[in-house]
Amino acid sequence: MIRGLYIGRFQPYHNGHQHILEEIARRVDEIIIGIGSAQLSHEPSNPFTAGERLLMITRALGTIGNPVYVIPIEDLHRNALWVAHVRSMAPRFDIVFSSNPLVVRLFGEEGIAVESPSMYERASHSGTEIRRRIIAGEEWESLVPPAVADVIREIDGVARIRQIARDDGDGRCL
Amino acid sequence: MIRGLYIGRFQPYHNGHQHILEEIARRVDEIIIGIGSAQLSHEPSNPFTAGERLLMITRALGTIGNPVYVIPIEDLHRNALWVAHVRSMAPRFDIVFSSNPLVVRLFGEEGIAVESPSMYERASHSGTEIRRRIIAGEEWESLVPPAVADVIREIDGVARIRQIARDDGDGRCL
Amino acid sequence: MIRGLYIGRFQPYHNGHQHILEEIARRVDEIIIGIGSAQLSHEPSNPFTAGERLLMITRALGTIGNPVYVIPIEDLHRNALWVAHVRSMAPRFDIVFSSNPLVVRLFGEEGIAVESPSMYERASHSGTEIRRRIIAGEEWESLVPPAVADVIREIDGVARIRQIARDDGDGRCL
Amino acid sequence: MIRGLYIGRFQPYHNGHQHILEEIARRVDEIIIGIGSAQLSHEPSNPFTAGERLLMITRALGTIGNPVYVIPIEDLHRNALWVAHVRSMAPRFDIVFSSNPLVVRLFGEEGIAVESPSMYERASHSGTEIRRRIIAGEEWESLVPPAVADVIREIDGVARIRQIARDDGDGRCL
Amino acid sequence: MIRGLYIGRFQPYHNGHQHILEEIARRVDEIIIGIGSAQLSHEPSNPFTAGERLLMITRALGTIGNPVYVIPIEDLHRNALWVAHVRSMAPRFDIVFSSNPLVVRLFGEEGIAVESPSMYERASHSGTEIRRRIIAGEEWESLVPPAVADVIREIDGVARIRQIARDDGDGRCL
Amino acid sequence: MIRGLYIGRFQPYHNGHQHILEEIARRVDEIIIGIGSAQLSHEPSNPFTAGERLLMITRALGTIGNPVYVIPIEDLHRNALWVAHVRSMAPRFDIVFSSNPLVVRLFGEEGIAVESPSMYERASHSGTEIRRRIIAGEEWESLVPPAVADVIREIDGVARIRQIARDDGDGRCL
Repeated sequence: MIRGLYIGRFQPYHNGHQHILEEIARRVDEIIIGIGSAQLSHEPSNPFTAGERLLMITRALGTIGNPVYVIPIEDLHRNALWVAHVRSMAPRFDIVFSSNPLVVRLFGEEGIAVESPSMYERASHSGTEIRRRIIAGEEWESLVPPAVADVIREIDGVARIRQIARDDGDGRCL
Repeated sequence: MIRGLYIGRFQPYHNGHQHILEEIARRVDEIIIGIGSAQLSHEPSNPFTAGERLLMITRALGTIGNPVYVIPIEDLHRNALWVAHVRSMAPRFDIVFSSNPLVVRLFGEEGIAVESPSMYERASHSGTEIRRRIIAGEEWESLVPPAVADVIREIDGVARIRQIARDDGDGRCL
Repeated sequence: MIRGLYIGRFQPYHNGHQHILEEIARRVDEIIIGIGSAQLSHEPSNPFTAGERLLMITRALGTIGNPVYVIPIEDLHRNALWVAHVRSMAPRFDIVFSSNPLVVRLFGEEGIAVESPSMYERASHSGTEIRRRIIAGEEWESLVPPAVADVIREIDGVARIRQIARDDGDGRCL
Repeated sequence: MIRGLYIGRFQPYHNGHQHILEEIARRVDEIIIGIGSAQLSHEPSNPFTAGERLLMITRALGTIGNPVYVIPIEDLHRNALWVAHVRSMAPRFDIVFSSNPLVVRLFGEEGIAVESPSMYERASHSGTEIRRRIIAGEEWESLVPPAVADVIREIDGVARIRQIARDDGDGRCL
Repeated sequence: MIRGLYIGRFQPYHNGHQHILEEIARRVDEIIIGIGSAQLSHEPSNPFTAGERLLMITRALGTIGNPVYVIPIEDLHRNALWVAHVRSMAPRFDIVFSSNPLVVRLFGEEGIAVESPSMYERASHSGTEIRRRIIAGEEWESLVPPAVADVIREIDGVARIRQIARDDGDGRCL
Repeated sequence: MIRGLYIGRFQPYHNGHQHILEEIARRVDEIIIGIGSAQLSHEPSNPFTAGERLLMITRALGTIGNPVYVIPIEDLHRNALWVAHVRSMAPRFDIVFSSNPLVVRLFGEEGIAVESPSMYERASHSGTEIRRRIIAGEEWESLVPPAVADVIREIDGVARIRQIARDDGDGRCL
């Protein structure tokens, strides 16, 4: 039995993430999805709470048959301890899927296998682009699974992103 | 659609928890299980990591048909902020199930409905009793779902509990 | 111009504190009252939030003519830094009033003058005794200024103290 | 009885703040002033300690007759918990006055009334402009109440701002 | 080249520690001494700062010829991350010397070799006994290396221990 | 006996630091070297752990005869408490050597003597320049003591710096 870990911030969860997860689902038996920076929300780059992101992911996963664990991971602000932190919050895993050089390095230094999934239309399928479109009033729903668009609407997410984008200050966490 | 929250430390998850969850499953559509004190492990009273507890719970839930979200909740050490913390980590919920007076009070002060589930053979079905039996070398497997006993065996949990119980000091977290 | 500092947890503010403050008011021009362990509340030994304690103190101070600053001080859990922490949160002060040996030691090591106020009916005028009487249903209002009894009633403080006292567990902060 | 909350960093407290408070004083019975980012000081953008800012505010408030509570509020770095944090440190309040979009959003999501006060010569009456003038050696005293200029002089604030502005590094907190 | 790690709280460093280090010195080329709970001081069980303990150890090590690294280690309060924390603060090490069951377990779970040094007159050579003797006014100097007694005298350590022992409260960290 | 403190981040320790320490060695009897931001590593600007930096410094100090204490100092993110923090982690010191305006200010406000050492070929002898050269594949070994180049090679430091420099995101700590 092979268990794979996939970590992202999912601000929001989008078609690029979904595509990668479908690839991972063919490679492993069980999938752990780590929601990074779980403690952040209501920031221009991190608008959604961990609970909201967890709901987006769970609802969108319908078509994936593998058992999936979705786990919020709070930041530690200590890179050297981060792998131990993730391991303590998740069931044991055999392989990590990530394209982030820091994540690749940290798991690699601990001797854990890491694979970089192929990217899927990265330019448009990024949280940054989706948040930009929402603020600009452009079409964004086609970039996320329908279930995610539903969740964003339910939680009044569009209004939240637009309002905190007006922050004249440093947009930082209070 | 009604979503209910049930919070515990699950050190370990046992038949008493399972019994309460079966009750809750008849009351709500979806269940959120919060794993409290998620950051603690390797202590006499908190031997298992959040990831290990999450695995116990997920494996034991097989017979419950409702959608279930299992979420580690780290301690904040600030009671007045705890409800907001739980809400930020979990999808929106309508009702909380708890018999802990502090949890009942905190959610109650925020105007959230709380119900106290009936207890199930509390004396023996407690984490304290199970940990005591493991240290004493007495029979304990009958107090937990078979899947939990499997997980504890897989992670070498009996040896861990016995070893840290020998702590001559204050048994505190390092 | 002499400014004096008086620190306590004020769980709740009572006649003993009031008596000491009246003494201090005759000794200094301005008074700083530090509310210690400001982040704690809803615990058997720390039932009230900093905001609730601040309200009790401010309302009860009516008869003291000196300018008073009431300042919540969160715990740092690092004794060697605590004096610097208090100094950063308060206006400059010339003298500290305390009978707590640790507080006396910490300010003394920094070369700050400390005086121990005479105690006032300590046995009954203690937060511990007042909280015990509230739980037991005994008379407690005579031990606090009338304005404090009013605040405790307004915030439903009696019910809170009784409810969290039933905590069957360790009564610790979540 | 209506109690209003006004939050700022007050680095330093200036005529713009004073003007807004005079407006608020006509709207509510009691005023709570929250000193945000209370734990920061000795940074180019946050030169003064919470205690120094509290002193500036208290001395400048002479002309306002309403009862005022001035309360340091440390950052939590978790936006979703910030409203609960403020509420735990302050007496109950009925309305919040703020023009900061994030603050407006956070209190709004909790169902708390928020009003945006009219701005008062915002271009020059900002902490950024005052700190810039102090570093440049330009006139700045006319932008703050006379009592604030006195406090800044007493605490050697001009020299402090100029010295830490020379920071060749990232100016970050140690 | 073999490097060994030895961790203790050293409140204070005593002959038992010195004896164990002499044993370790015969087993490894270089020694890392970790000062645990480095952030604690001025508590009845943790009277000395990390800097004071570091000075005691360095002065007493005169007779040990091996290169020695003395490193303060702050508590994390997360056992599952503690080994990674120690590793990030220290040069790479090959073996750990400890008799503490929790430390043995944590390093063991990470696959790091641990040896339990033989104890040296444990009953009297313990920090608890030395602190008790200091409070009681009994002879204690013979239980510590002469250099440690010198440091304790220089920093007024006897008066500090006696004063904070009078703490009528819970003796906890502020 | 005069003890001097010298604080830096040492990412990595280089000839400029070595030159300054040789100057300090002629001025004081004993030297404390504080490794700042000890908790950071695996970041583009902070690639090395405290333990790795400690090893670089210790190995390079061979030619300095004075007793030296090398102490990791974690960030507190509260400038007003930072001097007390450093003092708690280090043996008592009489003078601080620093050219950082913030460090100079903070120790100065506490009445501690500070001297700014003369700079040594600052343009090229900076951590920033060395990290830039490593990423660019340019010669960098001549800017650090030979022992430091050895340590960086042993810990695979060149590959680490290059890999985390590819970080497409914000390069922030997880």
